[in-house]
Amino acid sequence: MPFSRADLDAMDGALTAAVEAMAKLEAGAIANVDENRMVGHYWLRAASLAPEASLRDAIDEAREATLKLAADVREGRLRPEKADRFTAAVVVGIGGSSLGPMLVCDALGTEDGVEVSFLDNTDPDGADRMIARLDLATTLVVVISKSGGTKETRNGMLEMKSAYEAAGLAFGRHAVAVTSSGSKLDAVADAEGFLARLPMWDWVGGRTSVTSAVGLLPAALAGVDVPALLAGAAEMDALTRRAWSDNPAAWLAAAWRLAGDRAMVMLPYKDRLQLISRYLQQLVMESIGKKLDLDGQVVHTGITVYGNKGSTDQHAYVQQLLDGPDDFFATFIEVRRDRAGSSIEVEPGVTSGDYLFGFLRGTREALLDRGRGSVTLSIPAVDARRVGAIIALYERAVGLYATLVNINAYHQPAVESGKKAAARVLALQGAVVSAMGREPKSAENLAEAAGSDDVETVAAILRHLAENGRAEVTGGPAPWDQRFRAPEA
Amino acid sequence: MPFSRADLDAMDGALTAAVEAMAKLEAGAIANVDENRMVGHYWLRAASLAPEASLRDAIDEAREATLKLAADVREGRLRPEKADRFTAAVVVGIGGSSLGPMLVCDALGTEDGVEVSFLDNTDPDGADRMIARLDLATTLVVVISKSGGTKETRNGMLEMKSAYEAAGLAFGRHAVAVTSSGSKLDAVADAEGFLARLPMWDWVGGRTSVTSAVGLLPAALAGVDVPALLAGAAEMDALTRRAWSDNPAAWLAAAWRLAGDRAMVMLPYKDRLQLISRYLQQLVMESIGKKLDLDGQVVHTGITVYGNKGSTDQHAYVQQLLDGPDDFFATFIEVRRDRAGSSIEVEPGVTSGDYLFGFLRGTREALLDRGRGSVTLSIPAVDARRVGAIIALYERAVGLYATLVNINAYHQPAVESGKKAAARVLALQGAVVSAMGREPKSAENLAEAAGSDDVETVAAILRHLAENGRAEVTGGPAPWDQRFRAPEA
Repeated sequence: MPFSRADLDAMDGALTAAVEAMAKLEAGAIANVDENRMVGHYWLRAASLAPEASLRDAIDEAREATLKLAADVREGRLRPEKADRFTAAVVVGIGGSSLGPMLVCDALGTEDGVEVSFLDNTDPDGADRMIARLDLATTLVVVISKSGGTKETRNGMLEMKSAYEAAGLAFGRHAVAVTSSGSKLDAVADAEGFLARLPMWDWVGGRTSVTSAVGLLPAALAGVDVPALLAGAAEMDALTRRAWSDNPAAWLAAAWRLAGDRAMVMLPYKDRLQLISRYLQQLVMESIGKKLDLDGQVVHTGITVYGNKGSTDQHAYVQQLLDGPDDFFATFIEVRRDRAGSSIEVEPGVTSGDYLFGFLRGTREALLDRGRGSVTLSIPAVDARRVGAIIALYERAVGLYATLVNINAYHQPAVESGKKAAARVLALQGAVVSAMGREPKSAENLAEAAGSDDVETVAAILRHLAENGRAEVTGGPAPWDQRFRAPEA
Repeated sequence: MPFSRADLDAMDGALTAAVEAMAKLEAGAIANVDENRMVGHYWLRAASLAPEASLRDAIDEAREATLKLAADVREGRLRPEKADRFTAAVVVGIGGSSLGPMLVCDALGTEDGVEVSFLDNTDPDGADRMIARLDLATTLVVVISKSGGTKETRNGMLEMKSAYEAAGLAFGRHAVAVTSSGSKLDAVADAEGFLARLPMWDWVGGRTSVTSAVGLLPAALAGVDVPALLAGAAEMDALTRRAWSDNPAAWLAAAWRLAGDRAMVMLPYKDRLQLISRYLQQLVMESIGKKLDLDGQVVHTGITVYGNKGSTDQHAYVQQLLDGPDDFFATFIEVRRDRAGSSIEVEPGVTSGDYLFGFLRGTREALLDRGRGSVTLSIPAVDARRVGAIIALYERAVGLYATLVNINAYHQPAVESGKKAAARVLALQGAVVSAMGREPKSAENLAEAAGSDDVETVAAILRHLAENGRAEVTGGPAPWDQRFRAPEA
């Protein structure tokens, strides 16, 4: 990265303060001031550090219950309604309830586990495609929602339930929930007779929940060595509690700060780590993308994250990284172990893995030659301990960076506005449906009848309804010539 | 988008010139001046427009051969060595030889086709994982490389060949190639007795090759309606040959231009379109990310592309889009048809698809409320005709935009530098291996013995070799305490 030790030293006060703020947070200070919550994801891998005995017990009990549940599923003690054992699992969850689990399962899943898929949207066709690939009779559904109120997850669960019922199977006998006690999902799990429930707590944010049951249950089902994952995270937590000058998370946060407003391009040279950029998009962008700082000043902070994997991405956008705007820094992840077994030579003395290694080093050098910075993480292998360590490293770096730029990393104040606007659209849809009769009418007329002056949205609603057999369209093809009416009853 | 008709009118001269330049290119002008090549991907879906009879015949013959080959595979006329029929295919290709085919197969693949996977890297572990999931005896390998010289593809092919041989199967009897006549891959296909070869031409760039055999063979194998894909592209080509004021590709290019240096965030609200951002990362960033303009001036142009799908991404980074830096514009893709069958209600009168629709509109509105622009494409369904149209729309918009900013969209001058640097690393590895004996030596000593002063790279080489059983390491754990020697012979 284009900075020197002197640049770091000039940040001494800020970095020291950031590490101290993190220590207070770990001791139980209310770090999420907006929501009046503690921030306790670090306690999940070292329960003894939690500030209250009740928290320590809750963490230990949840972890044990998670591991026992996964073992019971994998070893056939917990059985589906009409088959001998579960052979697959579907996680229904979105955001923090899918991105971390997805990364961990894809990076570390083994043949000893069951195959874990993810339903992470409210796309009916997406649900249909996933369900078509599954044998529901041997599939466990893991519904994950901290609040229990996330609409995409609620809808995904209802789509799954409908499919089980159509297959003559009792949904509850194939389902478990991870949610807060007393949530809407908790009530559904009770009413439907779910096989099990695992807890979530308000002191674990969604995007830092991967070392709670949210991430650990899918991981354990997929055959991941969960104790090693937690141990790796705990080791990194210990390393990153040190003073900044000996603290890799502080160095990383300082590097981001010194990079200015540059985007973070994630380039893991390993197929198993391809989802790390999607995981970090949430962890970094939802934490750092803020309008106001802690003093209420308008700052519009943010770090854009994108990328997939190397060397694949060299054949996609590295041309722009080399020649285009100087608006990013790259993060290379080097994995030194090529594969489990031995390698063929693709040229005398050279393996496929040597090429992968060479392309990473070569691209890094080509960027450096153009004055474009990069960070490199080098790990011996993609194993549970190292994945746990990388997760903990980035969680801590994000927290420290937030202090450096004086923002709250633990809330997401803007996302409600999109949800509220969506609710208004659905309410408008209801009014439009009520306003339709058998007489064809224009979008303008129906908007007026629905009490709205937003003709464009009403027209979009009508076209969506028409494409799904819930309105009839006449006229057209130009939108302004279209007329809509209710279908025959 | 935050501009008006007057802003567009002010670009009249530039947009008219861009559309005229595109007409010349389509008539066979040498548009890729660096490489002295015509740019003919538009001819692939309307061969009659190609400037020479030999090109027209080549396009028609290749398309027919592609469709016949896929039909022979799917209908069991072309059979593997030791099984009745092929049931799966693996595409070995990278960049333009995988991103387009991957998008088309994921968006449009049907149960009538064979399952198509992609080996798009030189990661040995990635190849092992893919091969473990396959039944090689019924798998067709499609090796795609225009030049035949792409190392990742060559290595992926050799890994596949090794796996077939280990399984007692003749690789050539399970393999087809898509490559330029006379390429290295062409020679391999000949020597190995591949089942078939399909052509590529120097007038089709990798990132615009999806409507050549590169994209059409995987698509046809996956059960995609290839004639409809080509027809949709041809229809869009016709629409986007019009004068700019009536030309959707020109409007799109103008919108990008008026957006300044903003990133393009792709938000298709449909799981099937999730890979469009990866496809466009190459198409846009490799085409537009340039240091020099056509007059040789240093300009460092570029448009960053990222995104996955909505509403999923609302729970990842939309917080930053709403509150963070104003450095992007969103592109929403609305798909009006929710699913093939009927929908359950998740609330009275409301479906999962209504939520998907509502979230798109709601997020768009929330962005607009903050003055952040977006483009919306609305399509009735994700079908072959519309996917072909979207591909053609973006191909054309990229070409027009390049003219607006006065750059060559059809070369990628910087990517060679990374490959050359990688070749130097591999050559250095050879020298380091030669320099190692049974006497443990430091990286410094081995660098000197290998004639290099790049100790950091030599140390990385040694650590990579050590992790793969090709060097022994003593000392450590600190890197500067490590010593390396050759393994016992």
